Amino acid sequence: MTKAPTVEDVARAAGVSRQTVSNVLNSPDIVRGPTRERVQRAIAELGYRPHAAARRLRTRRSSTIGVRLDPYAGGISGVVLDRFVHALTERASERGMRILLYAARTPAEEIERIGDLVDGGEIDAVVLTGTSHEDTRTTWLHERGVPFVSFGRPWRSDGDGAGEHSWADVDGAAGTHAATRHLLDQAGPKIAFLGWPEGSGTGDDRARGWSEAMADAGSAGPRWHTEESVGLARELTGAALAADPAVDAVVCVSDSLAIGAHLAATALGRPDLPVVGFDNTPAAEALGISSVEQLPEQVAAGVLDLLMGPTGGVVLRSDQRDSAEEAAYVLVEPRLVVRGGLTA
Amino acid sequence: MTKAPTVEDVARAAGVSRQTVSNVLNSPDIVRGPTRERVQRAIAELGYRPHAAARRLRTRRSSTIGVRLDPYAGGISGVVLDRFVHALTERASERGMRILLYAARTPAEEIERIGDLVDGGEIDAVVLTGTSHEDTRTTWLHERGVPFVSFGRPWRSDGDGAGEHSWADVDGAAGTHAATRHLLDQAGPKIAFLGWPEGSGTGDDRARGWSEAMADAGSAGPRWHTEESVGLARELTGAALAADPAVDAVVCVSDSLAIGAHLAATALGRPDLPVVGFDNTPAAEALGISSVEQLPEQVAAGVLDLLMGPTGGVVLRSDQRDSAEEAAYVLVEPRLVVRGGLTA
Repeated sequence: MTKAPTVEDVARAAGVSRQTVSNVLNSPDIVRGPTRERVQRAIAELGYRPHAAARRLRTRRSSTIGVRLDPYAGGISGVVLDRFVHALTERASERGMRILLYAARTPAEEIERIGDLVDGGEIDAVVLTGTSHEDTRTTWLHERGVPFVSFGRPWRSDGDGAGEHSWADVDGAAGTHAATRHLLDQAGPKIAFLGWPEGSGTGDDRARGWSEAMADAGSAGPRWHTEESVGLARELTGAALAADPAVDAVVCVSDSLAIGAHLAATALGRPDLPVVGFDNTPAAEALGISSVEQLPEQVAAGVLDLLMGPTGGVVLRSDQRDSAEEAAYVLVEPRLVVRGGLTA
Repeated sequence: MTKAPTVEDVARAAGVSRQTVSNVLNSPDIVRGPTRERVQRAIAELGYRPHAAARRLRTRRSSTIGVRLDPYAGGISGVVLDRFVHALTERASERGMRILLYAARTPAEEIERIGDLVDGGEIDAVVLTGTSHEDTRTTWLHERGVPFVSFGRPWRSDGDGAGEHSWADVDGAAGTHAATRHLLDQAGPKIAFLGWPEGSGTGDDRARGWSEAMADAGSAGPRWHTEESVGLARELTGAALAADPAVDAVVCVSDSLAIGAHLAATALGRPDLPVVGFDNTPAAEALGISSVEQLPEQVAAGVLDLLMGPTGGVVLRSDQRDSAEEAAYVLVEPRLVVRGGLTA
């Protein structure tokens, strides 16, 4: 018996990564035309079938997807998750699906809540947010056979976690890489990185984009880190810039830190020091600070594509999707929004 | 037959406004202790019964409340509605209720969407946001007998709209009044108001708080207005402050305009000019700008109290609540958050 072709085979035939094949299958809009066509040709030639079984409707459906909404925590970055929920509501509505919100303060409580909703036939699927190492929720969802996709990848110490389960995420390293490239071109060779303390998946990923771009350019710059706080960022950057005035620009892990860095530079008489933040929040926009835009709307579209197929109107069961080994994922490339000082 | 006592009778007996009686009945936490006790005594003495019928459970309930979530529109003030939805989800969860989101771009589309959800038994009640003059949605909901409460009052040209339907809102005029009082004490007599063009219920209400506080103090200051934009506010305030440097401080209708005013003052060498915004957004916090905090968490609590009674776990039918003539409302007094320059 011939083994059925896998995503791996398609990737090899098309000369692209597994990830690109996943993107073509699940969110073709974000793949460039020529690449998409090459992958689609390989799929046709190999006879690859992305979904093991024909798509069957579930007999009992609520047409509803559950999402946890956390208490408002303040700070400026919550806006990305809120935009994601807005976009998910819009896109789900276009497919005849609805979003049910639930509250939970711990993973254990979230599991209990999801259990109630599933048992009551009130939701067909779950969109998880805020993935972490050793996430107890995903294990439970797998065991119960509840369809789910996460916004955020399954961070693992031994790799990127692809294959654990389906997920959509933003390619943070690509965002800081683009920001660093831009500043190397426009500002000068010595670009600092202002990040969070090491150890967070998201923060380390964004630091990597900066360090790779710097290494590629044969350039070097200091790496600073502090907690997520405008005030702390301002203090730290003020001292660091005073000690090392040769720094040409600063790439930051978040808009909060970028605002702090900008205020510090302004206080030192360098209001035009180029600073790039991350998240493109309204606060960065109001201050005219450049930022990496996460495009949560594309993440929401990717999540629904993964749950329902690119055009479907029902949640796919796991046997209608790729096997666990070939869990699909969508990695959205963020966009650098360049601003030259205060907005008009 | 003796006529049953009304809210009006209780208000007269206790020497308070109808609104205070409504607050005591529906959201007692926000009424000061002595006032609350006086109203409660009057209720007991008159034998007033706030709910015409005993609270009966509906036989078929979804335990779900529908809320429209608009597409993300950018800007910094959307955060208030997002915080409201966060708080509503939390509070509803504590009462065993869930929040279902739906998308709609027009009032007609929203009516259709609500109709589907009600017909399908998927929601028990609706929380409306963004009320307007001549709101077609409220008329339709009344006719269909769908329980609802709005965040935002039924703005009418002939009054405050009390009695149209149950609503919870923030007392914008009280917020700008408090801000103006504070600035009169701390900054000087000449306080400007930077508002939106006249004609919006919310904007005119906030302007009123400033003008009343100024009149009470026998003081006068200029009134400027512009569209909701940091850049436009910066331009306008820059020109106005240059022409009239005697202005001691500026009360603003929103944080966006306050940020614009602050940037303009800074550019003119007056970074310490006191400016107060409205909404207490993360952007104002990051810049250390004082602001009026809407307390959307209290509005959410008020909305649920109005829908379900202060302690109930089910949505009340209209015949279980006050008659339309006595529709209840909760007016939340906002809180002035004073900041002295950049946050630590």
